[in-house]
Amino acid sequence: MIDRTLFNADHEAFRDSFRRFVEKEITPLHDSWEDQGYVDREVWRAAGANGFLCMTMPEEYGGAGADRLYSVAQMEEIARAGVSGIGFGLHSEIVAPYVLHYGTEAQKKHYLPLLATGEMVGAIAMSEPAAGSDLQGVKTTAIKSADGSHYVLNGSKTFITNGWHADLVIVVAKTDPAAGAKGTSLFLVERGMEGFSKGKRLKKLGMKAQDTSELFFDNVKVPAENLLGGAAFEGRGFICLMEQLPWERLQIAIGAVAAAQAAIDWTVQYVKDRKVFGQAVGNYQNTRYTLAELQTEVQVARVFVDKCCELVCENRLDTATASMAKYWCSDLQCKVMDECLQLHGGYGYMWEYPITRAYADARVQRIYGGTNEIMKEVISRSMGLGGR
Amino acid sequence: MIDRTLFNADHEAFRDSFRRFVEKEITPLHDSWEDQGYVDREVWRAAGANGFLCMTMPEEYGGAGADRLYSVAQMEEIARAGVSGIGFGLHSEIVAPYVLHYGTEAQKKHYLPLLATGEMVGAIAMSEPAAGSDLQGVKTTAIKSADGSHYVLNGSKTFITNGWHADLVIVVAKTDPAAGAKGTSLFLVERGMEGFSKGKRLKKLGMKAQDTSELFFDNVKVPAENLLGGAAFEGRGFICLMEQLPWERLQIAIGAVAAAQAAIDWTVQYVKDRKVFGQAVGNYQNTRYTLAELQTEVQVARVFVDKCCELVCENRLDTATASMAKYWCSDLQCKVMDECLQLHGGYGYMWEYPITRAYADARVQRIYGGTNEIMKEVISRSMGLGGR
Amino acid sequence: MIDRTLFNADHEAFRDSFRRFVEKEITPLHDSWEDQGYVDREVWRAAGANGFLCMTMPEEYGGAGADRLYSVAQMEEIARAGVSGIGFGLHSEIVAPYVLHYGTEAQKKHYLPLLATGEMVGAIAMSEPAAGSDLQGVKTTAIKSADGSHYVLNGSKTFITNGWHADLVIVVAKTDPAAGAKGTSLFLVERGMEGFSKGKRLKKLGMKAQDTSELFFDNVKVPAENLLGGAAFEGRGFICLMEQLPWERLQIAIGAVAAAQAAIDWTVQYVKDRKVFGQAVGNYQNTRYTLAELQTEVQVARVFVDKCCELVCENRLDTATASMAKYWCSDLQCKVMDECLQLHGGYGYMWEYPITRAYADARVQRIYGGTNEIMKEVISRSMGLGGR
Amino acid sequence: MIDRTLFNADHEAFRDSFRRFVEKEITPLHDSWEDQGYVDREVWRAAGANGFLCMTMPEEYGGAGADRLYSVAQMEEIARAGVSGIGFGLHSEIVAPYVLHYGTEAQKKHYLPLLATGEMVGAIAMSEPAAGSDLQGVKTTAIKSADGSHYVLNGSKTFITNGWHADLVIVVAKTDPAAGAKGTSLFLVERGMEGFSKGKRLKKLGMKAQDTSELFFDNVKVPAENLLGGAAFEGRGFICLMEQLPWERLQIAIGAVAAAQAAIDWTVQYVKDRKVFGQAVGNYQNTRYTLAELQTEVQVARVFVDKCCELVCENRLDTATASMAKYWCSDLQCKVMDECLQLHGGYGYMWEYPITRAYADARVQRIYGGTNEIMKEVISRSMGLGGR
Repeated sequence: MIDRTLFNADHEAFRDSFRRFVEKEITPLHDSWEDQGYVDREVWRAAGANGFLCMTMPEEYGGAGADRLYSVAQMEEIARAGVSGIGFGLHSEIVAPYVLHYGTEAQKKHYLPLLATGEMVGAIAMSEPAAGSDLQGVKTTAIKSADGSHYVLNGSKTFITNGWHADLVIVVAKTDPAAGAKGTSLFLVERGMEGFSKGKRLKKLGMKAQDTSELFFDNVKVPAENLLGGAAFEGRGFICLMEQLPWERLQIAIGAVAAAQAAIDWTVQYVKDRKVFGQAVGNYQNTRYTLAELQTEVQVARVFVDKCCELVCENRLDTATASMAKYWCSDLQCKVMDECLQLHGGYGYMWEYPITRAYADARVQRIYGGTNEIMKEVISRSMGLGGR
Repeated sequence: MIDRTLFNADHEAFRDSFRRFVEKEITPLHDSWEDQGYVDREVWRAAGANGFLCMTMPEEYGGAGADRLYSVAQMEEIARAGVSGIGFGLHSEIVAPYVLHYGTEAQKKHYLPLLATGEMVGAIAMSEPAAGSDLQGVKTTAIKSADGSHYVLNGSKTFITNGWHADLVIVVAKTDPAAGAKGTSLFLVERGMEGFSKGKRLKKLGMKAQDTSELFFDNVKVPAENLLGGAAFEGRGFICLMEQLPWERLQIAIGAVAAAQAAIDWTVQYVKDRKVFGQAVGNYQNTRYTLAELQTEVQVARVFVDKCCELVCENRLDTATASMAKYWCSDLQCKVMDECLQLHGGYGYMWEYPITRAYADARVQRIYGGTNEIMKEVISRSMGLGGR
Repeated sequence: MIDRTLFNADHEAFRDSFRRFVEKEITPLHDSWEDQGYVDREVWRAAGANGFLCMTMPEEYGGAGADRLYSVAQMEEIARAGVSGIGFGLHSEIVAPYVLHYGTEAQKKHYLPLLATGEMVGAIAMSEPAAGSDLQGVKTTAIKSADGSHYVLNGSKTFITNGWHADLVIVVAKTDPAAGAKGTSLFLVERGMEGFSKGKRLKKLGMKAQDTSELFFDNVKVPAENLLGGAAFEGRGFICLMEQLPWERLQIAIGAVAAAQAAIDWTVQYVKDRKVFGQAVGNYQNTRYTLAELQTEVQVARVFVDKCCELVCENRLDTATASMAKYWCSDLQCKVMDECLQLHGGYGYMWEYPITRAYADARVQRIYGGTNEIMKEVISRSMGLGGR
Repeated sequence: MIDRTLFNADHEAFRDSFRRFVEKEITPLHDSWEDQGYVDREVWRAAGANGFLCMTMPEEYGGAGADRLYSVAQMEEIARAGVSGIGFGLHSEIVAPYVLHYGTEAQKKHYLPLLATGEMVGAIAMSEPAAGSDLQGVKTTAIKSADGSHYVLNGSKTFITNGWHADLVIVVAKTDPAAGAKGTSLFLVERGMEGFSKGKRLKKLGMKAQDTSELFFDNVKVPAENLLGGAAFEGRGFICLMEQLPWERLQIAIGAVAAAQAAIDWTVQYVKDRKVFGQAVGNYQNTRYTLAELQTEVQVARVFVDKCCELVCENRLDTATASMAKYWCSDLQCKVMDECLQLHGGYGYMWEYPITRAYADARVQRIYGGTNEIMKEVISRSMGLGGR
């Protein structure tokens, strides 16, 4: 095994602290959250109170001014523990950064502290029933009122992580529907705005405690000051979205590798303990080679993702490389889950086993954040291979 | 496409009739059965009343004296419709045949008509918590009483399909625990026998309407006349189990191919309808090649399984070939489900989509009926490759 | 294993006879033919003298009026023996059938007997340096002279099997270059026609005794009576080519399965004999599972290809199904060769081992006869998935 | 793409210089070397004269005292150029280090300068016809004479890289045949010693200019001073071999990644230039996705191997990690070659194309240096998974 050099002692202390939080505040309740289809709202406030939200936001806005590696450690712990209902990563490292990077001073001052304490839960609404990964195909519109005081938002969104809990939703909408990508803007939409409603929580293959939801916007009057970044950013939403892609995609890879390593660890333990036909499952060559292959690929993936983490901390991670990490690590995660499940025999199909949930949870990673097919489009274009 | 020649007009008429039964009596309720974790008992009686149980049993025992292709057609319809809670195949083509082939006349006269009407639901109890696919490692014991009037059954079984509903369970137990495979016998254990209890219904990744359960036997006094086949069969259980393997394993392959073809059909329709980036998903070369590959493999599998069905009807299907069918078709089924799910994008992860359930349902096929690893043991031995 | 039912006793007698011919007349010389890059011309005449060419041509044209299964058996024997320099299949079952099906009576009377005796070696010239599998993109032209007495043929062809030996070449050319597929015609071009020359024999990864060559046509005056089928067939060449595709593609699949089965057989023997770390390689679970997987897939493929052979004998094999057979079996062949080579360890890389040559020979099967990518185009179109 | 940080400017200058050497002194002759089956001896002396041999040996022994990254750069250039006949890596980074690390001062002073100038070509003789990768199963014996002045060496070796040219061969032999691994010693055997003969150069699938040979030892009297390390090292040969494994295995991975990247680069260029069905092959989605997948895996592999190179320079690379690199990168190399060959269509099968040779050359990488199956043994043991 290769020793990781990514983290310093402070990161590791933070990781330990968060791990204890997960063990105490999350894992014991996660089963019941799966049954109800959402995590208790209380866990958001507890996380905020303990400094586990928005760590990388500046202190002046309620964060800890930490580097992204604290978030990396947190994502790894969430993945390792299999508590897939917890949407802290999206909240702290996707939603909050949009506010920080593009928001007006007033927006930052208002929203970031609320996100950091967990008073507000954040979400981002990109996907639409008819558009999927195609951000240029967004149908939701936000038409400026004649007096310029607000935008009228219409449309519907789906597959929205944290959607049912969300108090603050960054909504991708067309302010100039005729202008394609250049007509795209981002809005800070709050729970309670008239005409903003939530659909059912979506029942899924896995991630059963995640409150993924549909959102509907029916003539929602969004005040002009809720245009993210203010008037200067009207029509610049697509560029903002593109800029954030490398870090967002890398997050999926980080979770993938951590989850996959955890699954291997469970399985190594299981095959050592479990006996069939008179000896430990782990003694059979098929078992040993399978696990050796999986561990090799996860080791390789870890070195790659750690390298990408170094680059993202220096703002040097390009979109194509991040797309490689997203697609390849999520494919690997699913492969690992599949083979580790198989090595559990019949128990691998029983919901009470972590490997079973990890298998079901993993499957969406190849789809969200841009399908892996989209990743290959991005990569091939970076190689000078054109057209579609 | 290659026209199938396996079925005659009578088989197809039966298929149509059963398909209507599924559409009317099963599909509309299957969602609610998933929620409750078991199918309504009523569907068993309705199936019995309509002649959809034990078709291949002789008429004198309540069956229809039909050939196995009627059951093949039925299994295909169940798989095609994705109604994975329905355990008719196990009941009619695994449990009932044991009674028919090995039972005493009295056993046949008593049990087969009750199975054929659906008054009794049948199950077979092989797997144990500690033994999995290893039938020789069975720990459940059935010790003959001093007066020879009964056996005292002790042990526990798990992963028992139809277990929670079951009225009649064929239990694999050791009558001579020291004798290995040769000490194995089969017992007809009925619901209500003192000391026979059922554990919880097992919560699974998929097959959520299947009442898969644990069964416990605590000093159950099983009358000697409930030894399957009577006294002459004491110690011959392992041989009986081996003899039935080819047909049992082929059933898994039959379901696998039918389910996979259905998934391709849904997906072809979906990708024709669904548009992304301005054109139908089905127009993209990646989609087209993926589906061409899957259809090719399913076509190949279908020809192979149809050939095996011909052989099994002539009692000429050997265990190694059946093991090939079981492992290869179930692997293929899972591959098809995985790739078809991916082509559905985000919707592929939503439980309301048939592909999602089919994905979850499929995963157990590589495990039960002997894991696919066991199949490879069997095949390699048939090639003269020895030892473990 | 599943007993094959495709062949009757006469087919098997023919197979035995041809197998002896291979063992006596071909195998002992094949090494030296590899070194020289072509088979001795004498083997063609010996094959003709023994009735091993053009068996399926009518007796009146020098054939044996046999059904295609004789040729199937022959192709299997050639593949099994790994004598990849032998181009009898192309000669007898691709070139001769064009003459038979589309030729004028005079053409049939003249050429078929010469092909059947081996006095003439046949080839077909489709691929061009710039066009590859794209028959519509053929650049070779055949422009009719003003007096209609001949066509002037210009162009070059490449990858022509039997090319260096060939006495009769069916050349695909555009008689109406502006008309696309509809302007395509087929010509019977003979060795010695002025302006027809042969390029170098192509040095290849494998198939080293095959005299695959380039052909050049520089103002070759082809008499009008050498237009295949006569004047009525001018412009109908593309249709002829399409009609023959199913049988031509199936031939690749037939060879693939036979070669793959032979490789498994060699490897099973090798791993039983070869000892490492104190026991036979064949005792290791990795070896056993690998071979079990390969044998399973080859068994499945064999059943499928035998079914296709039945259909092709009834002229009921459609192009999409043949394309499935071609792509899937050639992919499988390469996979089998790769894994069997690996099981041979270092010896698998030594040219003197049959597995090594079989590995090198196999690789072209995924490319010629239309690349496997083209096959997926054809299959996807048959599924109603459109466009490119 | 991720910028590499492994090399400094001096390494890169060395790389450029060596690249020019390859372009001038090697590439133009390599075809003819393939035909003759060995490289001209002159290239060894030219390399020595230009400082391209034994760069990492200390200056006092004729080397340049360089770090291993110079050798890494050289290996990459050799792989990139596809000049697989060149055995400098084995000579400089496997043979010479044995002398340096374990040799007596006299041995170092004598042999290292001769290796550095290319006057002597080095080889190492491990594999035997009956033992393959199993070093403990070595049958070659070296029995000490009664007077202790020499050892009598008997046995045969095979698959010896540089074997036909070799002037100095490190021979693995049992000095105590009854003692297993602990009876293993290493000998410095020179060309011309009586009883030492060379078998035929082995004809292989690829690496056709490599003079891989068999070696025979028939009562060779090896002076006692030619025991590597002198008397103190008798019986310690197995330990020496184990210590060198990480660096030796990593070398295979380094070549694998460089060769794979070169193949992708050629193929990207080819598919941009080549047109089929009216557009560039590189425009098709299948092509683009395939190349995106391959580039992703090669990028991931490169980051991993670069990390391993860092570790090996610090003597911190463990055997399990090196085994991961060896197996995974060589598997990847073969996959890349296979898919890139396919994208070349018919030209991919023609020996004159670099991709074709690269395909043939690559195949042995999964076999030599310990088969990839052996690597999985090593890895699984490092995971605590026992037995065989």
